[in-house]
Amino acid sequence: MEFITGLEKKAAMDFSELMSGSMAGQEAFVEGMVHSIRDMGEISFVIVRSREGLLQTVVNKSLADGELGELREGQAVRVRGIVTREERAPHGIELHLKEARILSRPEEPLPLAIDKWKLPTSLEGNLNRRAIALRNVRERAKFKIQEGICRGFREFLTEQGFTEIHTPKLGAKSAEGGANLFRLQYFHRSAVLAQSPQFYKQMMVGVFDRVFETGPVFRAEKHNTKRHLNEYTSLDFEMGYIDSFLDICRMEAALLRHVMQTLETEYSEELTLLKITLPDAERIPYVRFDEAKRLVSEKYGRPIRTPYDLEPEEEALIGQYFKEEYDADFVFVTHYPSKKRPFYAMDDPKDPSFTLSFDLLLGGLEITTGGQRIHDYSMLLKKIEEKGMEPEGMEDYLDCFKYGMPPHGGLGIGLERLTMKLLGEDNVREACLFPRDMTRLRP
Amino acid sequence: MEFITGLEKKAAMDFSELMSGSMAGQEAFVEGMVHSIRDMGEISFVIVRSREGLLQTVVNKSLADGELGELREGQAVRVRGIVTREERAPHGIELHLKEARILSRPEEPLPLAIDKWKLPTSLEGNLNRRAIALRNVRERAKFKIQEGICRGFREFLTEQGFTEIHTPKLGAKSAEGGANLFRLQYFHRSAVLAQSPQFYKQMMVGVFDRVFETGPVFRAEKHNTKRHLNEYTSLDFEMGYIDSFLDICRMEAALLRHVMQTLETEYSEELTLLKITLPDAERIPYVRFDEAKRLVSEKYGRPIRTPYDLEPEEEALIGQYFKEEYDADFVFVTHYPSKKRPFYAMDDPKDPSFTLSFDLLLGGLEITTGGQRIHDYSMLLKKIEEKGMEPEGMEDYLDCFKYGMPPHGGLGIGLERLTMKLLGEDNVREACLFPRDMTRLRP
Repeated sequence: MEFITGLEKKAAMDFSELMSGSMAGQEAFVEGMVHSIRDMGEISFVIVRSREGLLQTVVNKSLADGELGELREGQAVRVRGIVTREERAPHGIELHLKEARILSRPEEPLPLAIDKWKLPTSLEGNLNRRAIALRNVRERAKFKIQEGICRGFREFLTEQGFTEIHTPKLGAKSAEGGANLFRLQYFHRSAVLAQSPQFYKQMMVGVFDRVFETGPVFRAEKHNTKRHLNEYTSLDFEMGYIDSFLDICRMEAALLRHVMQTLETEYSEELTLLKITLPDAERIPYVRFDEAKRLVSEKYGRPIRTPYDLEPEEEALIGQYFKEEYDADFVFVTHYPSKKRPFYAMDDPKDPSFTLSFDLLLGGLEITTGGQRIHDYSMLLKKIEEKGMEPEGMEDYLDCFKYGMPPHGGLGIGLERLTMKLLGEDNVREACLFPRDMTRLRP
Repeated sequence: MEFITGLEKKAAMDFSELMSGSMAGQEAFVEGMVHSIRDMGEISFVIVRSREGLLQTVVNKSLADGELGELREGQAVRVRGIVTREERAPHGIELHLKEARILSRPEEPLPLAIDKWKLPTSLEGNLNRRAIALRNVRERAKFKIQEGICRGFREFLTEQGFTEIHTPKLGAKSAEGGANLFRLQYFHRSAVLAQSPQFYKQMMVGVFDRVFETGPVFRAEKHNTKRHLNEYTSLDFEMGYIDSFLDICRMEAALLRHVMQTLETEYSEELTLLKITLPDAERIPYVRFDEAKRLVSEKYGRPIRTPYDLEPEEEALIGQYFKEEYDADFVFVTHYPSKKRPFYAMDDPKDPSFTLSFDLLLGGLEITTGGQRIHDYSMLLKKIEEKGMEPEGMEDYLDCFKYGMPPHGGLGIGLERLTMKLLGEDNVREACLFPRDMTRLRP
């Protein structure tokens, strides 16, 4: 009988291994895809792309026999060569090739010039050929940043005693009411896709005290804007035993600080490649909803048109105001009107027309909605009635409160929106691998 | 203007802080839910449950004024007391209460005896009141184990240079063909829910070389068995530049070893609580599909009825065989027949009626399906034709191959199945927070 006992050492080295001083003059194998070829007459520069970046290799044409003479863009290759110091090459080294093995050959030349610094295509062109466009190292780097956000989110919350949960995306009824739901047939019954893990994460506070989830949510919103996706990744947390909704804001501020630190230490190459300056999460101002409205209306002379909601332009101006007045990138806008918040939002006992809730804006865009939730059973029933809703279909959720729940609150962060703002992009589709919107269901 | 600058120190302490020797005789606050109350006459024991476990607190009834006299099961409380060594109490300490603040009161007594060691209810009863049943500390611990699996999975793959991706769950067409798909209306078009991230993770190998995803998948399978869920969490990875499908098996073996180490070091309390002996992932036998069939048929005298597939009973016997013969918990079964594998599976060049693919069994249950994929464009088109399929609707996937892809392969692990086997449970619903099956769409 034969056994598998774990990883085996491979001949091919990581690019980073080649860069150690001791490798100069040594022979090495590397693997990757031929990213581009520059023909210089006697020699040609064959740029090899791997997950680590680009490596310059050099082929002396007069010595290029076998597959070494057949290298073309788009091939996957394993090459052998001598590691040579070369100041003008990326990372100060290049590989002088002795031999190549072509692992796979493309059928056609690449349809996009992925080796250009900035991919020469429209966003639509990029998204239509997404899996090719992302072979551009800058396009790809955006999603390493996104990975870093997720990783920082999970690491920090795990340290803070949160438990990761996986809640169902298929359900009989939804948290936020009937609008904006995708509906489907589920074995002769009707089901909906989760527009948030709201009910489940609250229910799990009664079990684990603190929970988080990173997963897809589905919104059948008929918005075709630069800020909306119909499927996105939501970073959710919910925590018990809060004294105030500000405890949620504090947890988010500390979380964002950890995310920025993770990006700085683990993703510095990508930050440099993309010329990203990270926002300051050390000190985040907070301002009441009505006060924020007043401030921007006064400073920028913009009349208040919607008393219960923030218009996108108003959010942008709030961002601008706090950048100008306090050099702040983030701002918590608190105490949203009860009218515009879901039934489970806790009203402010001092004035029940406002809630103990907040949005977090980054660069004038909402990236988080959160707040304290109602934890008292009869208060919850009363609020459902006041909102003109029916408790029918919410029994499982309501039961948790009937049998006791701690005071709690939480939030949801739109991963793509946060990524987009960190990247300095102005369309959320730039920050989603395969965006879904009203007109796009592929690739 | 006021600012949020991160976490603030709270009065309430973690249970673990109380256990430090220096706390004996000191006053402390803790928060949690009243898990159970044992009335002993003069005094009562009030067991408080938090995310960390159970803490014994003691109320001297003659001194219990205010809310200290009103403590009831199911309440969320903040209590103040003196930390006292008591060998008979869990963790060797108890808290002699001076004061209590009741943070919330239940409307009704708990419908399940969550304080019993083993929850006295059927699986159906448990699932029907899931959010309450999980307040039982053993039920809850199962999902800490599940968290540990996910955490180990991501940590290990991140170390190995894999990139985390988030791929869409809504699509126009699916990877594995038409059967078993949930269909829905997507803005006047028809869409399907992803039954696996297969196409996307392969496409992303051309970008990141190595990728992983942890997310929900949806299977409209009309199976109502102990092993099937219609929505589950799939732990997927896909990696380029493999020399053989055994590279995938090796990566999985090393991954499983890391997961077991993570559980041992970070989740030892839960392992003890649940009396779990972890399986041995150090040395995993591998055996061909046809050979495995022959071995169990011979040893257990069971005729081979389905030459192209493993029956559940056959899988169980393979597990039994390798346990008996090699003391192995896991076994890789390799070279599944091409007939029963999807079109993208790489056929064995030595005998194309078998594929370079595998399942991993744990305790006689399939927990992983994986293998090498076809990376050559024309080979892929040919296989699609041979399978009687149409390339229509798969253009985005096929384009990746047209423009060049490295040799690659990968796998998917069913998180709930792996959890179930580690827990020694025999129904996968035990290992899912909110299972979805043909008859269950709530809670």
